[in-house]
Amino acid sequence: MAKSLSDLHCSVARSLDVIGERWTMLVLRDAFNGLTKFDEFAESLPIARNILAARLKTLVDHEVHTRALYQEHPPRYEYRLTPKGAGLYPVLIGLFNWGDEFLAGESGPPVRFNHRNCEAPDAEDAARPESVVVCGGCGEPLGPRDVRRAGRGAPNRSR
Amino acid sequence: MAKSLSDLHCSVARSLDVIGERWTMLVLRDAFNGLTKFDEFAESLPIARNILAARLKTLVDHEVHTRALYQEHPPRYEYRLTPKGAGLYPVLIGLFNWGDEFLAGESGPPVRFNHRNCEAPDAEDAARPESVVVCGGCGEPLGPRDVRRAGRGAPNRSR
Repeated sequence: MAKSLSDLHCSVARSLDVIGERWTMLVLRDAFNGLTKFDEFAESLPIARNILAARLKTLVDHEVHTRALYQEHPPRYEYRLTPKGAGLYPVLIGLFNWGDEFLAGESGPPVRFNHRNCEAPDAEDAARPESVVVCGGCGEPLGPRDVRRAGRGAPNRSR
Repeated sequence: MAKSLSDLHCSVARSLDVIGERWTMLVLRDAFNGLTKFDEFAESLPIARNILAARLKTLVDHEVHTRALYQEHPPRYEYRLTPKGAGLYPVLIGLFNWGDEFLAGESGPPVRFNHRNCEAPDAEDAARPESVVVCGGCGEPLGPRDVRRAGRGAPNRSR
């Protein structure tokens, strides 16, 4: 039995090995919302400071965030998303969309975001960010039945 | 302190409360790959059968999967994605893309998928499914700086 997700020969498992720990995606949510300082994350997230520090350390170790001293006495650090971290935006928005659509209940989505400069008519409600799956070749929207396993990829029972 | 992610007033947190447990996204990966039977998931995933059963039960409880008897003696069940479950495809592909792009190392992505009927020229390599964030109003690609918090949403420190 594999002890770790990263032992699996699978990009989904490897991604989860970096960002799949409890609270990590909420640290990323706050980072995409513009938070950078340890104390800002600590105020936003209802978790112990040592847990937050451990999650941020993992993200820095994996180059999802950079960490830089912004004040020397006492030492204070800020955390900024790298391009690798920014690459997680579709995952975050996918989770956000799904919660909005299927888990919001009668009171509706808790928080709304809009495309800042949307020029579509009547866009106020429609202009939300949406994570969609498209083909990198032709740009068509894709569902799971539109794709097939392609040539490459080592044989492994963990797909 | 919130004990549970679902206590947070946030669609991302609510989504993670359903699918954020270890191994759950890999159950979903296999479901999107067409697996339906308990024994198929058990063969694919290197986890104990009781853990797998618990993850599937959570998914059925949250109507991500349906569960149906397909054999009576001995009783055997199959699990199928609901439309709510299908709504997680962008999250899965986002994790898949990120692992391919940033975690694959020198040997390259472990498994490749292509758009089955892509008509773009030279599409063999390019025709992979990609999760992208677009505006639901105008269709433009969006990054985190292109969105702003909109009118609705209860005040809460957990964004």
